[in-house]
Amino acid sequence: MTRVRLDVSYDGTGFSGWAAQPERRTVAGVLAEALARLFGPDGASGLTVAGRTDAGVHATGQVCHVDLPDEAWARLAPTLVRRLAAVMPPDARVRAVREVPDDFDARFSATFRRYEYRVTDAPYGAEPLRRHDTLAWPRPLDVDTLNAAAKGFLGEHDFAAYCKRKENATTIRAISRLDWRRDPDGTLVATVQADAFCQAMVRSLVGALLAAGDGRRPVDWPAGLLSRRERESGVTVAPAHGLTLVAVGYPEDPEEYARRAELTRRLRG
Amino acid sequence: MTRVRLDVSYDGTGFSGWAAQPERRTVAGVLAEALARLFGPDGASGLTVAGRTDAGVHATGQVCHVDLPDEAWARLAPTLVRRLAAVMPPDARVRAVREVPDDFDARFSATFRRYEYRVTDAPYGAEPLRRHDTLAWPRPLDVDTLNAAAKGFLGEHDFAAYCKRKENATTIRAISRLDWRRDPDGTLVATVQADAFCQAMVRSLVGALLAAGDGRRPVDWPAGLLSRRERESGVTVAPAHGLTLVAVGYPEDPEEYARRAELTRRLRG
Repeated sequence: MTRVRLDVSYDGTGFSGWAAQPERRTVAGVLAEALARLFGPDGASGLTVAGRTDAGVHATGQVCHVDLPDEAWARLAPTLVRRLAAVMPPDARVRAVREVPDDFDARFSATFRRYEYRVTDAPYGAEPLRRHDTLAWPRPLDVDTLNAAAKGFLGEHDFAAYCKRKENATTIRAISRLDWRRDPDGTLVATVQADAFCQAMVRSLVGALLAAGDGRRPVDWPAGLLSRRERESGVTVAPAHGLTLVAVGYPEDPEEYARRAELTRRLRG
Repeated sequence: MTRVRLDVSYDGTGFSGWAAQPERRTVAGVLAEALARLFGPDGASGLTVAGRTDAGVHATGQVCHVDLPDEAWARLAPTLVRRLAAVMPPDARVRAVREVPDDFDARFSATFRRYEYRVTDAPYGAEPLRRHDTLAWPRPLDVDTLNAAAKGFLGEHDFAAYCKRKENATTIRAISRLDWRRDPDGTLVATVQADAFCQAMVRSLVGALLAAGDGRRPVDWPAGLLSRRERESGVTVAPAHGLTLVAVGYPEDPEEYARRAELTRRLRG
């Protein structure tokens, strides 16, 4: 078998998230179906994704890996992107495919995930052509306040207040970037990067920051919750459709794939 | 009555174009319905648009005017954008409203219309979140060839080859800008600006340029058709969903509104 990295984009609107579920339309389900059409029902195995996005969340920079039979891969590789485009629906695309070492693991070798969250405070709401990936916020937002509040999240913290509690799973994460910009068209865009996120964490962080950004909460309220040991009910999880997974990072040196995967497995344990 | 300028955006996907038609969902129909809800069934009159976009064409910079009862306008003006947002569907928005002189005519006072056409030649097709306003082109396109071919359209010409013939209507138009850029994400964007366009003209120009840009036609073929007196059947009209009306220009000096309108009426006659 040859291990292959797939770079994937999708509009999350019509999907019940990434992970395959019976009776639900999911990105993994659609992708597995396309791979089965090209490689046979048992041809592709071990589809593994970097970021299991929730229902309604989009991606322009999702990464996954899959193992393909050597002969079929060698034959289809040069035309695989076009072939996948022809058999997949237009709301999910495989942008690139490439062979990777066997110890590349899309999930565990990743060094960071980067998300963007788009929100507009325009009085007319979201621009129609961007309404599928932009949250309309009913109150004016202050970008300096958003950035001041965001600063308190930087670095390694226990994000228990912002995570769904899971048995035997740490809620400690390291946020390496969290800042807001206002684009020329007025849209506010948050960029959030961490080694990893627990479920709905980005949307919880954004929800808390928006409460500070529109003046309903003090600027130090979002980071102040980091002392809590449990999920904070005062935090509203921001809607899924503003969120897009834009990039996943991996070690530059392929020799590091296995070491990084081992380290991640130990950290998450 | 007070004349009011409305700046309008829409996602053309769900509309049978701008112009009101019985039994069809159109932008003018939706806007007229919203105005009727806020100003009463006979409150708003003379809704007039700068660019009557075809079915499926989008707008981020459409302009129209309407006459509103003085008293109701004075009362609702400060909150009108939010009120319209609340009663209109999310695929059509009024971005701004403002009082204009009575001789402002959204259609006849306009000095230019500017459109953008988005097309991708990526082997995987259109990025899912932009698939509603980006054409997926199956062959590689060369941006230098597109620009070289586009140059021949600049200036005043008889665009009979690129226009639907209409009784007693000139097909002479003046194109002040027509150029292509390749965005960092690989998308090719044409910007086309003219005093005015005849029906489906931008999409016909783009269709001809794409045939040169992918090498199926010589670079001088699109402009060479300008000698024809009739619509050229060899030109494929590019699909509507790649096209967006992004701006409409008016004289800076309001004193010029009437003069410009008179000039336009004479030119189009």
